[in-house]
Amino acid sequence: MGYSELMLEGRNAVLEAFRAGKSIDKVFIQEGLNDGSLISIVREAKKHHETKINYVKKDKLDEMSETHKHQGVIAFAAAFEYAEVEDILESARNKGEDPFIFILDGIEDPHNLGAIIRTANLAGAHGVIIRLNRAVGLTATVAKASAGAINYTPVAKVTNISKTIEKLKERGLWFVCADMDGDNMYKLNLKGPIGLVIGNEGKGVSELVRKKCDMIASIPMKGDIDSLNASVACGVMAFEIVRQRSL
Amino acid sequence: MGYSELMLEGRNAVLEAFRAGKSIDKVFIQEGLNDGSLISIVREAKKHHETKINYVKKDKLDEMSETHKHQGVIAFAAAFEYAEVEDILESARNKGEDPFIFILDGIEDPHNLGAIIRTANLAGAHGVIIRLNRAVGLTATVAKASAGAINYTPVAKVTNISKTIEKLKERGLWFVCADMDGDNMYKLNLKGPIGLVIGNEGKGVSELVRKKCDMIASIPMKGDIDSLNASVACGVMAFEIVRQRSL
Repeated sequence: MGYSELMLEGRNAVLEAFRAGKSIDKVFIQEGLNDGSLISIVREAKKHHETKINYVKKDKLDEMSETHKHQGVIAFAAAFEYAEVEDILESARNKGEDPFIFILDGIEDPHNLGAIIRTANLAGAHGVIIRLNRAVGLTATVAKASAGAINYTPVAKVTNISKTIEKLKERGLWFVCADMDGDNMYKLNLKGPIGLVIGNEGKGVSELVRKKCDMIASIPMKGDIDSLNASVACGVMAFEIVRQRSL
Repeated sequence: MGYSELMLEGRNAVLEAFRAGKSIDKVFIQEGLNDGSLISIVREAKKHHETKINYVKKDKLDEMSETHKHQGVIAFAAAFEYAEVEDILESARNKGEDPFIFILDGIEDPHNLGAIIRTANLAGAHGVIIRLNRAVGLTATVAKASAGAINYTPVAKVTNISKTIEKLKERGLWFVCADMDGDNMYKLNLKGPIGLVIGNEGKGVSELVRKKCDMIASIPMKGDIDSLNASVACGVMAFEIVRQRSL
């Protein structure tokens, strides 16, 4: 599978990509520049909630540039197009199933994100929601690690995970987050429309997001270390949901 | 955590490492050379079942060498010492528990092996058995990915997985391998002394090993792609064993 990282340099290339509707993960803009076409680029970037705008010094752009003609702007296109949260709900509706969504509160390792999208596909989840800040997007490495699952399972990127949870609660979803000091997951009722929240590799689920969850679930652990790898923990919890739904 | 890859060059360095009892994953020996101290090195290497001997051309050694004084031999020490299968059984005995062992039939990705050792620790498995050929050993990357679990969970390396299974059967263990077209894992009885067999990332469990297993278990999957990431599949199956043991 040929997923390649796409770096775009120069004002026309970046502006055209936005206007053609491509998913842009990041745009780097030279500090201090503020003329015509850069203003248009920033305006386009702000329309797209999956795009993170970074203002950087000229030196940084010079260093990143391959063409040495960046004209004050470099952007990174996603290896795959993002979906909307609404698309994920619609996929559940079309299948006549209760929504089952993975919500990732800051997964940074592309191999983990790829493995999680793969798990989402095989556990029958309808989609994956990731966040804009301090998290990896749909890079070429993620696409490859997903072993093709990215072609089938929609991934949406949102700016605010806790607001997204609030909105999905209005649509009838319950939220369970995986964390230490929660209730034994085998004793919780994980049936029905559900969002499974997985935290960052090092920091876990953020306090704000944790508070929005209806249940805190723990995988019962023995042993000497603190936690499972994030994609393994996600897999274990996801298939407990699958098991309960199959009873 | 500072796990570093240790490359040893030259006859004395390699011979001393063997004699000091260090775990050596691989030794590269120059083709055609067959004099005194090299014969001793080969003899030592053959005593250690965790060491893979590779005969290579001088060019290859020159390319690998950092000191440019390899004298026809370069070895790679493991970042961690290997245990024996007997140590794993003893750990179960000391805890008064039925043995629970992971058997890896050719895991090649160091991140997967690290994540699996981490899972073994937290699922309360008594140890992990890996194989010598076409598999990653206890490299520095594996040690790091294990998040410290490698300090607690013994890992043994064997030359022949199916023979090891035979011997462990004589000690009362049952073997379940994770594979497609098996029985739904939720319907199998996975209690008692058990070995969980996980196959290679691409090829799955080898035919010879599969035949030795008492049960073939499948994770019930929906979705469009073939299989979970190997470390995720291992985690899902391991915690199903944990769940059944806790009932």
